[in-house]
Amino acid sequence: MKKVGILMGSASDLPVVEKAFAVLREYGVPFEAHVYSAHRTPEEARDFARSARKNGFGALICAAGMAAHLAGAVAANTTLPVIGIPCKGPVLEGMDALLATVQMPSGIPVATVAVNGAQNAALLAVEILAVEDGQLADKLDAARKAGAEKVLQADAELAEKLGQ
Amino acid sequence: MKKVGILMGSASDLPVVEKAFAVLREYGVPFEAHVYSAHRTPEEARDFARSARKNGFGALICAAGMAAHLAGAVAANTTLPVIGIPCKGPVLEGMDALLATVQMPSGIPVATVAVNGAQNAALLAVEILAVEDGQLADKLDAARKAGAEKVLQADAELAEKLGQ
Amino acid sequence: MKKVGILMGSASDLPVVEKAFAVLREYGVPFEAHVYSAHRTPEEARDFARSARKNGFGALICAAGMAAHLAGAVAANTTLPVIGIPCKGPVLEGMDALLATVQMPSGIPVATVAVNGAQNAALLAVEILAVEDGQLADKLDAARKAGAEKVLQADAELAEKLGQ
Amino acid sequence: MKKVGILMGSASDLPVVEKAFAVLREYGVPFEAHVYSAHRTPEEARDFARSARKNGFGALICAAGMAAHLAGAVAANTTLPVIGIPCKGPVLEGMDALLATVQMPSGIPVATVAVNGAQNAALLAVEILAVEDGQLADKLDAARKAGAEKVLQADAELAEKLGQ
Amino acid sequence: MKKVGILMGSASDLPVVEKAFAVLREYGVPFEAHVYSAHRTPEEARDFARSARKNGFGALICAAGMAAHLAGAVAANTTLPVIGIPCKGPVLEGMDALLATVQMPSGIPVATVAVNGAQNAALLAVEILAVEDGQLADKLDAARKAGAEKVLQADAELAEKLGQ
Amino acid sequence: MKKVGILMGSASDLPVVEKAFAVLREYGVPFEAHVYSAHRTPEEARDFARSARKNGFGALICAAGMAAHLAGAVAANTTLPVIGIPCKGPVLEGMDALLATVQMPSGIPVATVAVNGAQNAALLAVEILAVEDGQLADKLDAARKAGAEKVLQADAELAEKLGQ
Amino acid sequence: MKKVGILMGSASDLPVVEKAFAVLREYGVPFEAHVYSAHRTPEEARDFARSARKNGFGALICAAGMAAHLAGAVAANTTLPVIGIPCKGPVLEGMDALLATVQMPSGIPVATVAVNGAQNAALLAVEILAVEDGQLADKLDAARKAGAEKVLQADAELAEKLGQ
Amino acid sequence: MKKVGILMGSASDLPVVEKAFAVLREYGVPFEAHVYSAHRTPEEARDFARSARKNGFGALICAAGMAAHLAGAVAANTTLPVIGIPCKGPVLEGMDALLATVQMPSGIPVATVAVNGAQNAALLAVEILAVEDGQLADKLDAARKAGAEKVLQADAELAEKLGQ
Repeated sequence: MKKVGILMGSASDLPVVEKAFAVLREYGVPFEAHVYSAHRTPEEARDFARSARKNGFGALICAAGMAAHLAGAVAANTTLPVIGIPCKGPVLEGMDALLATVQMPSGIPVATVAVNGAQNAALLAVEILAVEDGQLADKLDAARKAGAEKVLQADAELAEKLGQ
Repeated sequence: MKKVGILMGSASDLPVVEKAFAVLREYGVPFEAHVYSAHRTPEEARDFARSARKNGFGALICAAGMAAHLAGAVAANTTLPVIGIPCKGPVLEGMDALLATVQMPSGIPVATVAVNGAQNAALLAVEILAVEDGQLADKLDAARKAGAEKVLQADAELAEKLGQ
Repeated sequence: MKKVGILMGSASDLPVVEKAFAVLREYGVPFEAHVYSAHRTPEEARDFARSARKNGFGALICAAGMAAHLAGAVAANTTLPVIGIPCKGPVLEGMDALLATVQMPSGIPVATVAVNGAQNAALLAVEILAVEDGQLADKLDAARKAGAEKVLQADAELAEKLGQ
Repeated sequence: MKKVGILMGSASDLPVVEKAFAVLREYGVPFEAHVYSAHRTPEEARDFARSARKNGFGALICAAGMAAHLAGAVAANTTLPVIGIPCKGPVLEGMDALLATVQMPSGIPVATVAVNGAQNAALLAVEILAVEDGQLADKLDAARKAGAEKVLQADAELAEKLGQ
Repeated sequence: MKKVGILMGSASDLPVVEKAFAVLREYGVPFEAHVYSAHRTPEEARDFARSARKNGFGALICAAGMAAHLAGAVAANTTLPVIGIPCKGPVLEGMDALLATVQMPSGIPVATVAVNGAQNAALLAVEILAVEDGQLADKLDAARKAGAEKVLQADAELAEKLGQ
Repeated sequence: MKKVGILMGSASDLPVVEKAFAVLREYGVPFEAHVYSAHRTPEEARDFARSARKNGFGALICAAGMAAHLAGAVAANTTLPVIGIPCKGPVLEGMDALLATVQMPSGIPVATVAVNGAQNAALLAVEILAVEDGQLADKLDAARKAGAEKVLQADAELAEKLGQ
Repeated sequence: MKKVGILMGSASDLPVVEKAFAVLREYGVPFEAHVYSAHRTPEEARDFARSARKNGFGALICAAGMAAHLAGAVAANTTLPVIGIPCKGPVLEGMDALLATVQMPSGIPVATVAVNGAQNAALLAVEILAVEDGQLADKLDAARKAGAEKVLQADAELAEKLGQ
Repeated sequence: MKKVGILMGSASDLPVVEKAFAVLREYGVPFEAHVYSAHRTPEEARDFARSARKNGFGALICAAGMAAHLAGAVAANTTLPVIGIPCKGPVLEGMDALLATVQMPSGIPVATVAVNGAQNAALLAVEILAVEDGQLADKLDAARKAGAEKVLQADAELAEKLGQ
C-alpha cells in the first residue's frame, strides 16, 4: 500500500497532527511524519515533496499555522494530492492559516480541510488511497456505519434522558 | 480509467464549473456533470453519491455558493474523495461558501479549493486518479513544466520590456 | 397542540440546546429532541424531516456548529418552518456556523437566530405555534411583561445603588 | 387567512422587498407593506407591531440595511413571528445588516434569512401560516416539487449539452 | 451643569459601564444611569430619550452588546448627542455590537467608541459639555497633561530598567 | 455660534465630505474645511487641532480612509469633540478605516460614524452645538419631523402603488 | 548603489507593480524585475533569493495575490530585507493575500505594506538603501516636503473653492 | 553601528516588545526603547522620529494595539524605515491593530509584521542594518542555519518517537 506523508511546519503543531496519526493507524495505512518548515527548512520540504511519488507516497498532508505556506510549497513540488490543515495560531482564530492554505492560485491545488481538522485530513488521505483499494474502501464504509451508530447511540441516550 | 463526477448546486454555477470541464478534457479524464441541488433535489444528489463508487467514479467535485452544502451532503453519502468549490455569491465575497464548505466536522472530509477555484478542483481530481496511474502522473508533471515555461516566458517578456 | 422537533448535529451541542428545552417546558409546549447529524446520519435527519408534519410537529429547531448543514438539510425535506441555531465551534467565533446556516439559497428558508441562541430559537417556535393559539400568545405576552419587569427591577437596583 | 405584514426601513429597499411580494402573491397570501423606519418613524413601526396581531397579521417581515434595527424594533413590540431580511448596503457586503439583525438578545427572537433573501423571507412567512393551513402546506409542497423539476430540467439540459 | 444620561441594555453590561461612572465622577459631571433595554423595555428607553433634553441632560451614553440597538433606538427619539458603546458579547469579539452601533443610516447619528470603550464614551460626553464650559475644558486639558505624564513616567521607568 | 472644523486626509475624500458641507449649510452652522493629512502634513493637522478651541471651533470632523489616523491624530491634540468618518478605500470595504478610527485607546475619544457617513458626522456636530443652543435644537427637531414625513410620504406612495 | 529586486507571482500583477517601478526610477534606484511564481517556478524564485545579496541587491520586493506565498518563499532563502505587497484577487478584497503575507512565523520576517501598496513598497526599499546613503535620504526628505506641498496646495484650492 | 529605536504605545505592550529586545541583544545591535504614545504624548513620538536619523538610528520599531497609529505617526516624521508591530488588544483578535498599521496611504510606508510579531520586527531591523554590514549579514545567515538545525532536530526527535 502507498504511504501517507505528513509534514508539519513546527513541532508545536504536533498536538493537532497526532489526531491524523491515530486515524491512519486505525486504517492500517503506513505513514511517515516530518517536521519540515516551508520557511526554515525549505530544502527539506522541497526534497521530500519532489521524491515523494517515487518513494512510495500516495498522498501528503501538511499542517501549518499563521501564513501557512507549507502545503502550497509542497504542492509546488509534487503532483501527488496535497492536503492542507490550517492550524489555529495565537491570534485571528485560524482565519490567517485557512486563507493562506485554501486560496491557492490555479495550477497548484491544495485540498484544504477545516482549521485544525487533522482527522479529516487523514480520512481524506485514506479515501484517496481507497480509490483503487476496495478493501480500504470497505473499511471506510464500515467506519461511516460505526460513526452513524455512535450518533444513534447518543440519540437513544438523549431519548432515555428526556423520557421520550 | 475512473470517471470524475461534477455536481453543481445551480445552473448559474456553470460559468465557474466549465473551467473544470476544460481541465479534465485536457487530461483526457472522463467525467459526468449534473445540476443537483443539496436543497432542491437532495435525493438525486444523495443517490448519485451513494452509487458513485460502483458506477465507476474515482472522485467527485461539488460546486455551490452561499450556505454551500452540496459538497458536504455528497460527502455524507460516499467515501470517495469529495472536492468542494465554494462559489462567490452576490454578497460576502465568497466567505459564506468557503466556510460552509471547508469547516466540515470530523468524519466527513471535503477537500476544499479556493473560492471559484474550479481549475484546481479538476486538477486535484486528476491528481487523485494519478496516484495509481503513472501515465496520468506524467501528464501532470508535463503540465507543471509547461506552466513553469509560461511563467518564464512572461519573465523573459518583462526583461525585454524593461531592457534588463 | 403541535409539537416542536429539536435536532442537534452532535451530543456536544446539548449544553446549548438544553436552554431551548427549558423555554418549551416553561410554555408547556411538547417537544421531541434527537441527535441526528446531517453528515453522519443523513437518512435519520431526512426521514424525521419528511414525516414531521404528519407526525404532529409544527416547527423544527436544528442546532449545529462549523459547516452547519443540519438546518438546511432538514429544511430541504420539509415545508414546516425550520429554525437554525448556529453553534460556536472551536475556532472562528461561530462565524462559520452562522454563515452556513443563514445564507440559504432561494426556495429553502431557514429561520436563523443568534450564535448559540437556543432560547430565542425556542421562543420563535412558540411564536409560530401561537399564531393560531390565543392562549399561547397570551403566555408570550405575559412573559414579555415579566421580562420587562426584570429589566425594570435591575434598573431600580441600579438606581438604589447609585442613590439616584 | 391571516395577513403578512412587510415593513422596509427605506423606500430604497423596495427592489429587494418586491421579491417577497411576488412570492406572497404566488401563494395567494394577503399582505400589507409599509415603509416604516426604526429610526425615522419609530412610532409608526411600533404602533404597527403592537396592533399587528389584533389586525389580523400572522407574521411580519422586516427589511433593513446597515445597522438594521427594524426587525428587532418590531419584534420588541409584538410576539408574532418576525422575519428579518438584512439588506446589503453601500459597504461591508451586508455583514453589518446581517449581524445587526441576527444577533438578537435572549427574549426577543428575529427569524433571520440570508442577506437580501426576500424570497425566503416570504416563503418562511407562508410556512408559518401553513402550520395550521393544510391547503397552504400542500401549495408549498407542490412548489418544492416544481423547484426540484426546474433543477432536473437544468440537469437534463446540461446532459444534452455535454452529450452524456 | 447639564447631566449625562447613561443607559445600558442589560445589568450584565454594568462592569463595562462602571468605568464611565468613574470618569464622570472624576470630572464632577452629574449623571443618571438606567438599565433600559431597546427590546425588553422599549417604552422606557424611548420616554427617557424623548424627555432627556428638557430633563437637563446634555449627552446620552448607551451601552449594549450583540445586535446592539439601544444607542440607535435612543438616538431615534432625541436630537441630543448619543454616544454608543458596543459591548463584547459571548461570540464574534464585539464585531456584531460594533457594526450594529456604528452603521447608522443617514439622519440619526450615533457617536460610536471602541468595543467596551466606556471610558472614552464618558470622556466624549465631558468634551461635549465642555464646548460651552471653559472650566470643564480646562479639566480635560489638565487630564490630558496628566495622561501624558503617566506615559512619560512609564518611559522613565523603562529607561531606568534598560539602563539607557 | 461656534464653528465646525472639517478636515480630510486627502482631496480624494471630498466627494464624501461634501455631504457634510451640505448639512452644515442647511443648519446655518459656520464651518471651515481643510485638506490636512495625518501623515503628509502632520504639523498642519496638529496646529489646527491645538488652536481649534481658541479659534472658535466647537466640534471637529475628520474624514480619512485606509489606516485612517487623522481623527485620532487630531483628537490627540485637542479636547474638543472629534468626529471621525471612516472612508471606504479601494479594498476591504471600509473595514480598515472603520477599525482605525473607532478603536481608539482610553483617554483619547473619537466619535465614529458609519463608513462614508458624512451626513451623520455633520448632524452629530450640529447636535453638539445644539446642546447649549435651543434654536439649533429646534431646527434639529424640525428636521427629524421632516425626515419622518419623507418616510411617511414614501409609505403613502407604496400604499397607493399596492392599492392597499 | 545596491539594486532593488522586484518579483511578482504572475504577469497579471504587473499593473500593480509598475507603480513601484515608477517610484524607483524617480529616485534613481536601479532595479531588476522578474515574474517568478512561488508555486510554478519555485526554483527560480529560490535561486534569485539565494544569490540576491552577492548579486548586488539591497532589498527585495515581492507582489502576489490570493494565498500569497512569494514574499515568504523568498524571505526563506535570503536574509536581505524582503518587502511583501499583498495583491487584491478576484474575491475576499485582498484579505487572503494580506494575511498570507503578513502573518509570517518567527524567524522569517516579511515587511508587509498595504493591499496593492506598490508605491510604499518601493519607498520602503528606498528608505532601506538610504540608511547608509545620505544623498538618497535627502531625496526622500525632499519628496516628503513635495508631498506635503501637494496636500497644502489641495488645501488652498479647497479654501478658494469654499471662499474661506 | 546604527542603533534601533523601539517605541511602544503603552507600557502594557512591554511583554510583547521584550522579545524584540532579546533578538537585538543576540545580534549585538544597540537599541533604545521608549514608551511614547501617538495619542497621549504625540510630541515626544514626533520629536524622537524627527531626530532619529541624526541621532544615529538606522531603523525604528513601533508597537501598538487597537487603532494602532504609533508606527504611522512616527513614519510621518522620518524617512528612516519604520517597522510596525500590531499588538493584539482585548477584542477583535488583533485585526484592528493589523489594519491600522498596514493599510498606510501612499507616501508614508510602514513595514508591518505579524500581530504580536516582535521577534520578526527586530530581525527585520537587523536585516536592514545588515544591508551594508557584512558581518551582521553573516550572523543572520548563521542564525538561519541554527533555526533550520532546530527544526531538523525536532524532526529527528519525531522520527525517533514514531520509530520511523
